[in-house]
This record gives sequence, C-alpha cells and structure tokens, in this order.
Amino acid sequence: MGLDETAQKPHDRLSAHLAADMERVNALIRRRMASEHAPRIPEVTAHLVEAGGKRLRPMLTLAAARLCGYEGDHHIRLAATVEFIHTATLLHDDVVDESAQRRGRPTANLLWDNKSSVLVGDYLFSRSFQLMVETGSLRVLDILSNASATIAEGEVLQLSAAQDLRTDEAIYMKVIRGKTAALFSAATEVGGVIAGAPEEQVGALFTYGDALGIAFQIVDDLLDYGGSTTTIGKNVGDDFRERKLTLPVIKAVAKATPEEREFWKRVIEKGDQREGDLEHAMALLASHGAMEETRAEALGWAQTAKAALAVLPDHALRSMLADLADYVVARVN
Amino acid sequence: MGLDETAQKPHDRLSAHLAADMERVNALIRRRMASEHAPRIPEVTAHLVEAGGKRLRPMLTLAAARLCGYEGDHHIRLAATVEFIHTATLLHDDVVDESAQRRGRPTANLLWDNKSSVLVGDYLFSRSFQLMVETGSLRVLDILSNASATIAEGEVLQLSAAQDLRTDEAIYMKVIRGKTAALFSAATEVGGVIAGAPEEQVGALFTYGDALGIAFQIVDDLLDYGGSTTTIGKNVGDDFRERKLTLPVIKAVAKATPEEREFWKRVIEKGDQREGDLEHAMALLASHGAMEETRAEALGWAQTAKAALAVLPDHALRSMLADLADYVVARVN
Repeated sequence: MGLDETAQKPHDRLSAHLAADMERVNALIRRRMASEHAPRIPEVTAHLVEAGGKRLRPMLTLAAARLCGYEGDHHIRLAATVEFIHTATLLHDDVVDESAQRRGRPTANLLWDNKSSVLVGDYLFSRSFQLMVETGSLRVLDILSNASATIAEGEVLQLSAAQDLRTDEAIYMKVIRGKTAALFSAATEVGGVIAGAPEEQVGALFTYGDALGIAFQIVDDLLDYGGSTTTIGKNVGDDFRERKLTLPVIKAVAKATPEEREFWKRVIEKGDQREGDLEHAMALLASHGAMEETRAEALGWAQTAKAALAVLPDHALRSMLADLADYVVARVN
Repeated sequence: MGLDETAQKPHDRLSAHLAADMERVNALIRRRMASEHAPRIPEVTAHLVEAGGKRLRPMLTLAAARLCGYEGDHHIRLAATVEFIHTATLLHDDVVDESAQRRGRPTANLLWDNKSSVLVGDYLFSRSFQLMVETGSLRVLDILSNASATIAEGEVLQLSAAQDLRTDEAIYMKVIRGKTAALFSAATEVGGVIAGAPEEQVGALFTYGDALGIAFQIVDDLLDYGGSTTTIGKNVGDDFRERKLTLPVIKAVAKATPEEREFWKRVIEKGDQREGDLEHAMALLASHGAMEETRAEALGWAQTAKAALAVLPDHALRSMLADLADYVVARVN
C-alpha cells in the first residue's frame, strides 16, 4: 500500500460522514472562542482554529460516539473540548519551540507573541474546561483531567529528555503518549462514555486512540529522517537540528560503536553540528536497521489500533477508523 | 486604624485556627506536585509552593467550609486546588511580566525559564483539575471552570488594556476580577458549596471573596503610587514604568486638562518616560483627588465584604474573616 489516492480516503470519508456534526462543532468553537471583553483572543486563535486544520481529534470523538449509537448533543461539546485542548497545547508549544529555534536571537516581537500565546492558550484551556463540565459527566471529567496531566507531564519530560543520550524507549513512549496519544485516546474514550457504551467497548476505544496516536507520532518522527518536506509540512532534519531523542535515534544510539557514540554526543548532547552531520546520522540510522525497526513498530501499533475495533458495533464508521489506522502508517510503508 | 500590630493579627489568627487543616493541605500539595516522570517539576515550583507563601487563598476555602460546619475531607482538596491554580497563574505571569520588564534585553536564560514556566504552569493547572474532579461535585467544577475562564480572559484583557488611555473603570474592574477577585470568590464559594451551606450563605461567601479580592487589588494598585517598598514587596512606580492603567491613573486621566493629557499620552501610551515623570504623575494623582477617591473605593469594597458575612453562622472564623477585610485596607487607611 503506497501513498496513493485510495490511501488518502479514510479522513475524507470520515469528514463526509460526520459533516453535519462537524459543522455544529465548528459553530460551537467559533462561539466559545469569542470573548466580549478581549477581542484579541479570536485574532490569535483564528489562524489555528479557523484555518481548516484537519480536525482529526474532534472527528475521533464524534466517530466514537456515533459508532456507539449516541443521539444526544454532548458529543458536539466534547469534540469542541478536545479541539480547544489541542489548540491550547499548540499555542504553548509555540512558546517552547520558537524560543529553541531562535535561540540566541530572540526579538521583542517574539516575546510579545509569547505573551499572547501563553494567555490565549490558558483561555482556551479554561473554555474547554467549561465545555466539558456542561456535559455533567464526572467520568468524562476524570478522563479529560487525567489526559491533561499526562499531556503536561509529557511536555515537561520532553524538555528534560531533549539533548540527553540516556533517553531510552520507555521515556520516549511517555513523551509521545503525552505529546500525542493521550489526547487521541481521551478523544475516543469520551465518545464511548458519553454514548453509554459497554465497558468493553469504552476500553477498546481507549486502546484504539492510544495506539493510533502512538503510530501517528512514531511515523512523524520517522519522516523527520526521511520524508519529503511536502509530505509532512516540516523539513527533514528538524528534530536532528533541535537535538531531539526520537525513536530512530534512540535505537541507533543503543547500537552505536564507541566511535559512533562520540558522534551522537557531539551532535545531540553538545549541539556541535557541522556540514554533512545530518547525512551521516541518516546513514547510521539506516546501517543499524533503526529506520526499519521503527517502521515495524509503527505498523505494529496500527495493527493494535485496528484489532481493538473488533468489539465495536459493525458500522460504516468502524471501517473508516480501521482504514484511518492504515492510512496513518501508509506514509512510511 | 493604622498598620499596627493589632491590624496584623487576622491572617495569623486564621493560620492558627486552621493549622491542622493547613498542614494536610501542604502535605497534599507536596504529594500532588511530585512527578515520577519529570523530576524537574518540583524544582521549578518549590520556590513558589514551598517557600512559605501567605497561603491566603487556600485559607479562605478552609475558613468558608469550616464556618459552614463542614466535617469532610474535600475542603482539603479544594484548598490545594485553589493554591495550584494560583501558583500556575504566577508561573504564567512570570513569562508575561518578565518579558515586559526586560524588553529589548531578553536572554537565552530568560527564554529557557519561560519554557519551564509555561509547561510547569500547565502541569499545575492539570493537577488542580484532577483534584477538583475528585470531589465529585459538578457545582464545584462549574464554579472553578468559570473562575478559570474569568482569570484567563482578565489576563488577556489586561494585556490589551495596558498602555491604552481609553481604559476606563469598567475595564479595570474586569481586569482585577480576573487577576485577583475571581479566585478569591471561587475559593470562598466552593468552601460553602462543599459544606452544603444554604444558598443564601453560598451567595454571601461569593460576595465576600469577590469584594475582598477587589479591595485587595485596589490597595495594591494604590500602594504602587505611595506605599514603601518594604510594605508591598515591590517598588513604588513599577506600574507606572510598566505603563499600566490602574485605578488612580484612570481617575486622574478622566479629569486631566489638555496639557495633562499630553503628559499621560507621552508616558503611558508612547512610553517616553523621563527623570521626574513619576513624581509629576504622583502630583497629578494627588491634585485631582484620584488617590483619595481610590482609597474610598477600596474601603467601600472592604465594607461590602464585611456586610456579606452577616448571614453566615456566628463563629470565631466569621470575625476573623471580617477582620481580614479590615486588614486588607488598613495598609492604605
């Protein structure tokens, strides 16, 4: 299976199937983002929330709820909740990432943006919190509060794990659960909970979201050492230049010869990167089979996601979710 | 009433009365602040949470709950919740304020601190969220989610209102409700709610916290143009230098002659501040009676706070809360 037209379909099919719900989610997002008192807020968020993002996370919530036969209104609120949380974390990531990328050359403008990013991010978090309280479900609140803690902890962990060659696969998993999988799994799980689905199905929705999120992030990290710029919307080598310990590197470091280890120390720990280093790093990742192993893990997680769907009702949405899992890893397969 | 030994007692008396509860709150804070995965978190928060802050907000929650006869455990969780929210906003304020104070001279170290401040702030928010969910009270969650939104909105509003002479008293009130009063009123209100107090008492606790918070912030803003450095822990003129539109300035701007208006435009809007400008500003505040009027408003809010207590049970804590309202304004009386 390559990156062909067929492989691109699951997301569009989900969009089409959930179009009416998604329109309500978008209307709710616009309404709740507005602030009578602080008109700057929609300005800051407009490019994030309005500009036709993939809306993958809210779609997962809608799909999970509908798949379990939900007919109420709360899935709309929860989908908006999830998108607000996602947008808030993007805003706060801006502060963290921008400062790293422009280290040594910060501008007053950068700092002004930082202020808005921090405060508007907080605003969206608080809005998401209000929305989820409106569902009146303590279980939903429990799931989303735990997801929030996992996300925040993962972000801090990533900060301290960066540039540290001792980062192992267990730490990497915690980081990417926080960074990506925790919100995916909460998105699908709350869809099932709000629908009143049986425990077995709620558990399956959690597992699907968790595995999908992990596969998604591993693929993203893999493409950073091999995808084209157009495919992933960022440049090959960004993680390398930011000295991030992603799965391919962790695997290559674990198998490094003493000489290779010195190379990794220099480029990742010391940050002394020279012409040709990225190419050398990519050659090391290939020679130790680190790219292959990482790819196999991503495929494994996609399989886990698909397998989890077995206990869910036979439904058009179920096959779209299965295809989505395939699609996520198709980029590297 | 001057700033004498007697006037300093209410806070200490509350501390003594609530010592056993407060010890449990402190233990809970330490426990929940810890992160197995990210040991950096307690490092960042230690100086904020551990270093013997006044703990005013959690004390308000404990006092409100005990005053209404509460005998359970949830007031401990809620007090810790309130302190976590407060600490998280302090961390995020650091990012916003530091960048303003050092505008034009940001350092790499400042940016690194910004990262930790943003992410650890988010972590504390998410921890506070988990704690409040544990109380199982949707009403408490509703109050605290609304307070969070008011806080975030007020912060953004403050950012856009700064350096803008059109800022009026209505905007100022929204800013200080967000900055200070919203968490005070939520702190007292949830204490009443968790105790199952009658509606009238819950409403009174809200009003008390709201008015106390407003009085507290007005006094703070007033002292910035007149208190000594030791009294308020910051320097006279900080708000002036940061070009903030606080109540005394808003009142003086409203009564400014055309010539005075040019002065305010120069120092606040354009930020062109010269030797002697702070002294001139203080003279204008005095000549228009802006300091006196502001002081009278603070005293009025303290009276409102005290009056609200009338419907609450006759209890040692009630008189301590009344004395606390007097104490807050004693600094400028």
